[in-house]
Amino acid sequence: MTNILRRLQKLRSILRAKSLDAALITNVMSVRYLSGFTGDDSVLFVGRKRAHLITDFRYTEQARAELRGTHIEIVQRKIAILDAVARSIRDLGLKSVAFESDNLTVQTHADLAVKLREAGLKDASLLKAVPRLVSALRERKDAGEIAAIRKALSIAQAAFKAVLPTLRPGISEREVAVELEYQMKRRGAMAASFPIIVAGGPRGSLPHARPTDRKLRPGEPIVIDWGALVDFYCCDLTRTVFLSTMPKLWRTRYNLVLRAQARGIAAVAANAKASRVDRAARSFLIRHRLGKRFGHGLGHGVGMAIHEAPSLGALSAARLQPGMVVTVEPGIYLPRQGGIRIEDMVLVRRGGAEVLSSLEKDVDAVVI
Amino acid sequence: MTNILRRLQKLRSILRAKSLDAALITNVMSVRYLSGFTGDDSVLFVGRKRAHLITDFRYTEQARAELRGTHIEIVQRKIAILDAVARSIRDLGLKSVAFESDNLTVQTHADLAVKLREAGLKDASLLKAVPRLVSALRERKDAGEIAAIRKALSIAQAAFKAVLPTLRPGISEREVAVELEYQMKRRGAMAASFPIIVAGGPRGSLPHARPTDRKLRPGEPIVIDWGALVDFYCCDLTRTVFLSTMPKLWRTRYNLVLRAQARGIAAVAANAKASRVDRAARSFLIRHRLGKRFGHGLGHGVGMAIHEAPSLGALSAARLQPGMVVTVEPGIYLPRQGGIRIEDMVLVRRGGAEVLSSLEKDVDAVVI
Repeated sequence: MTNILRRLQKLRSILRAKSLDAALITNVMSVRYLSGFTGDDSVLFVGRKRAHLITDFRYTEQARAELRGTHIEIVQRKIAILDAVARSIRDLGLKSVAFESDNLTVQTHADLAVKLREAGLKDASLLKAVPRLVSALRERKDAGEIAAIRKALSIAQAAFKAVLPTLRPGISEREVAVELEYQMKRRGAMAASFPIIVAGGPRGSLPHARPTDRKLRPGEPIVIDWGALVDFYCCDLTRTVFLSTMPKLWRTRYNLVLRAQARGIAAVAANAKASRVDRAARSFLIRHRLGKRFGHGLGHGVGMAIHEAPSLGALSAARLQPGMVVTVEPGIYLPRQGGIRIEDMVLVRRGGAEVLSSLEKDVDAVVI
Repeated sequence: MTNILRRLQKLRSILRAKSLDAALITNVMSVRYLSGFTGDDSVLFVGRKRAHLITDFRYTEQARAELRGTHIEIVQRKIAILDAVARSIRDLGLKSVAFESDNLTVQTHADLAVKLREAGLKDASLLKAVPRLVSALRERKDAGEIAAIRKALSIAQAAFKAVLPTLRPGISEREVAVELEYQMKRRGAMAASFPIIVAGGPRGSLPHARPTDRKLRPGEPIVIDWGALVDFYCCDLTRTVFLSTMPKLWRTRYNLVLRAQARGIAAVAANAKASRVDRAARSFLIRHRLGKRFGHGLGHGVGMAIHEAPSLGALSAARLQPGMVVTVEPGIYLPRQGGIRIEDMVLVRRGGAEVLSSLEKDVDAVVI
């Protein structure tokens, strides 16, 4: 609850700084972040002093329970949602309303302008596009959020450990993925935080491979990328494992990726440029002539969304701040041969960083 | 493949009718619908004659395999996606480009306008907002899509039948949901098509309840709302079941919802107004003084997305057309007591309708 009030306060200080009357919050995660309401199809108005949630029949009972103590009022709409939004703006006499421009579509914005005119408001320019209005607040996680991410990691790791001994030649990628998700859910995950990747042998050269009925074979790299959604927070992990044996060439490659990851992790710190963190890992792989095999960014923020700011990539303009949680996941991809990716999650701290995940990844630990 | 070519043809005839040079397709489902490419973070340009997919390193190999035979070219970008889009527009000399205004955000649209100027194009008004550019095409399903939905239903129904005998007092809502999803995946589902609802007793009065650790009890209504995602198509079903016994009051209510559903299904036909179909079921419940307990629309279209047009609600302006696939799902919700909802999927045909789902729902079949 105090988290909610603190977040509302932060948003209100932005409203004051920008001389805006209110914020119209449309992104389902932003609504949840600022109110604790976990339903969807609802919007939140945050004014300078008051706030109200516009929801419908399906969610009213749930909203009453979830908003207790927040002082956020509940409006049960019986009209279309944009009509209800336009009436709120009119009835509260709002003259300037910030909206999340990276969430509202061009069409909804145009439709809302029409509704405002229908409600008797002449000038739709009272709607003010604010990029990343709430998602910027969400970049730095508070203690409750970090606890949820730790819980997600603990469940994802326990599930992985439960599934690992069942891997053997002949089991399919799909079977591994299904079991891994099942084991996460049995341990309390709401869902997998994204579609699990299990990619054996040549399929591992597709960074975003979908699990198939292909059966795992000894000696090939098997990329497993998975995560749990727990209390609405995500985690994201990757391990590359081998059945029975690890050919020498793959052992060399594996160790290079592992060392690149260590360099990336070591570069994570408050005030570090995100592009520098990427560079720390990338330059190592480039030196070992694997730069062209590492075609994606080093990592990304994780929170309510599986991919959120900051991005750890060469093009990123971000600077790391305490409370950010990012992945560090270098990978190499060799068409027709396979791939290796190793991913952990790191919390940016004032003095440096804390690696939140703890699954073994030494070369001997990943041969099963 | 022929499906893809036919869909591209339809889109091109819209471009010709609106005198537009090309369409910029950004919605991941629209891209998949028009190209067969199943990755994300990619955009598709469809011109009057040529088409190209802008993707990145992670997806190039996959795109090559999936686009074979479509004549869609692949562009592997190394620059930010909006820069690549702006360059395509400039280099192809496009003067008017339709975009999916119900998908592109206000922010992306503004950012793209900046990129166009940076690329030397003076007038960003060459971007033309077209609401529902592709989603309108997707409303009427072709034979391949209907086959995928049938397959999803067959898997969802088989999984339900496998889980049903395991229901007993003391098992939790969450355990049922986890098992049901697991059984769907074991049968080949890519995922659940939405977060499964299992809501026992009073929790059933929340139309969108999330499964909890609450244990099921004899004699209470248990609402189970689930579906499978198979070959990228969704299905959506609801049954309300009872353990051991069904109290008389609930039996009466159950039969009223079932009869309301039958009226709704009977009203589905090509050319029928969607609002009339809703009315057919709703007026029956109103006559039995349950109108206020039925607070949501009667149903919705289902396809690649779990909720798509047309909506079967009182406010819907849609008219049903052959090839549309909709749910018919009346429900009643009694705070502190529970809920009943029964949902099937119906294919609109020229002569009337075909109910695609086949799970039993007679009052005696739902007492376990």
